[in-house]
Amino acid sequence: MAITERDIIKSILAPLASRAEGAFGLTDDVALIPSEPGFDHVVTLDTLVEGVHFRGADAGALVAKKALRVNISDLVAKGAEPFAWFMSLALSPGADPEWLKEFAAGLAEDQIEFRLALYGGDTVRSPSGLAISITMMGRCPEGDLVRRSGGRAGDALYVSGTIGDGALGLRAAGHGGSWGLDAAEIGWLENRFLVPQPRIAMTKPLRVNASAAMDISDGLVNDLRLLCGASGVGADIEIGRVPLSAPARRAVEKEPGLLSLALSGGDDYEFLAAIPRQNVAAFEAGAKAAGVAVVTIGNLTGDENQVNFLDANGQRVEFADQTFRHM
Amino acid sequence: MAITERDIIKSILAPLASRAEGAFGLTDDVALIPSEPGFDHVVTLDTLVEGVHFRGADAGALVAKKALRVNISDLVAKGAEPFAWFMSLALSPGADPEWLKEFAAGLAEDQIEFRLALYGGDTVRSPSGLAISITMMGRCPEGDLVRRSGGRAGDALYVSGTIGDGALGLRAAGHGGSWGLDAAEIGWLENRFLVPQPRIAMTKPLRVNASAAMDISDGLVNDLRLLCGASGVGADIEIGRVPLSAPARRAVEKEPGLLSLALSGGDDYEFLAAIPRQNVAAFEAGAKAAGVAVVTIGNLTGDENQVNFLDANGQRVEFADQTFRHM
Repeated sequence: MAITERDIIKSILAPLASRAEGAFGLTDDVALIPSEPGFDHVVTLDTLVEGVHFRGADAGALVAKKALRVNISDLVAKGAEPFAWFMSLALSPGADPEWLKEFAAGLAEDQIEFRLALYGGDTVRSPSGLAISITMMGRCPEGDLVRRSGGRAGDALYVSGTIGDGALGLRAAGHGGSWGLDAAEIGWLENRFLVPQPRIAMTKPLRVNASAAMDISDGLVNDLRLLCGASGVGADIEIGRVPLSAPARRAVEKEPGLLSLALSGGDDYEFLAAIPRQNVAAFEAGAKAAGVAVVTIGNLTGDENQVNFLDANGQRVEFADQTFRHM
Repeated sequence: MAITERDIIKSILAPLASRAEGAFGLTDDVALIPSEPGFDHVVTLDTLVEGVHFRGADAGALVAKKALRVNISDLVAKGAEPFAWFMSLALSPGADPEWLKEFAAGLAEDQIEFRLALYGGDTVRSPSGLAISITMMGRCPEGDLVRRSGGRAGDALYVSGTIGDGALGLRAAGHGGSWGLDAAEIGWLENRFLVPQPRIAMTKPLRVNASAAMDISDGLVNDLRLLCGASGVGADIEIGRVPLSAPARRAVEKEPGLLSLALSGGDDYEFLAAIPRQNVAAFEAGAKAAGVAVVTIGNLTGDENQVNFLDANGQRVEFADQTFRHM
């Protein structure tokens, strides 16, 4: 049975908009975002395409969560609290209604977890495969947005969670066995790829303490270069301090070449933040209160655009630029 | 030569963002929309897919303009002044660089004409064909948004421009000859389909005078039903008053069955507005000053959801619901 746009709006989208006053139950042409004196609005947009960013066989709920979370991750890393999202959903005529139900359930779960509401969107026919484009809006106190460009020499560089799980997870089903991983470890890494964990409890600690920050979506190596470029600084990173999960560490021990993939492969959705020395104690206290693991991996330097990854002997290691592989 | 995301951002997108302070030259992860005390923000989102909403052979500049204008049209009809847009651009690996240049030129032209700036977006790979999803933001004085739901019995119903050109224009290349149209008339109708003309000069006259309004994208018949449904009213329309262009009128005279297509086919991007009697003179004066043709086609009635299209003898004519054909 073919699904109509009307069915999708009524059964999938309208329930997600029920708490958003300005969404008018998706019965009008536009959404209203009331002005909030003292707050700026912050907007990001990310698109996931079937066959490029996810596989047709991936569970609907997981695709839904990834589509929301890559956007949440962007806002959180800038100190903005996400509250509204808009979705363009391009569906092929043969879209599976059961899959769509799971997709809707995943969106609904994450709406609650991250306190979001759907404000509007568009549902269109796609000649081939699914494409999900989400525009997400957050708020932050006027003037407090954390840019990429505020980093200064001497700031400590922090990352959250563990790095490289997403890039390894994308390849774990096919290669995890040869990396010496068992099924549980492979599944854990895959899950890290499929369902990012935006560090939403860190929104405020980042906002009040970071001089520059961004989420790590294109790999630590590349994203650090971008942050340094925007801030007009360099960085010294001690590779040994970059936090790896236990499965990632085991894989890298078996195949040392995987370290490059872990550090430059992307899909981390952890954050990278420059913290001025005088804010380090407050930032670490904020992370502890939030229950989010953060570690310092090095510091910013005055050598503009000189981004050094140093091994245990203090020798520079080069990593290939793996940017834009999704394009 | 393959185009990279970096090329597209640098050569196509960044120049479109140069005037938007909050876009940060597209060098950050998010855009900043400063709070504007006294103004609400209004958001709409429309997606165009190759092979569904436009043809691969359509000129890049025209596709660009349509992608922007369908969104501008939504905002204008609600009394909101568009100012910012975000684009998700899904491109197949074989995208033609020349076509993309024309596309960028079309976006740039319309940015100037409609006083917009690009604030951000995402560029991704598409397995097949182009998809353009635009989220557009407008502003309107606090509380002044024109909803679908404010219409009251007795209000005069107005439309702008001429109705049906888009639906006829989509089919004119193949059928215009049999409708008795010459090449110039066929070309004129096709252009009406390809390049909508949002009535931006009517933003304020609509905002201050309309009790309910929306743009006509899914056909006058369907969109009027939506407006009446939201307002809890009915409508009496005199079919003979619905403005048709000279080519549309000629086609309908030759093939009377085309009237149904003209009134319910969609892609008009004119507006439909309910104007309380006491505002009619001011609204018409505003339209005259704006240089936009508006005509009253009937009025709202107290018969909830009773939408009557009446012929010259006062007899009801039924039109098929052609909604959601794009899905």
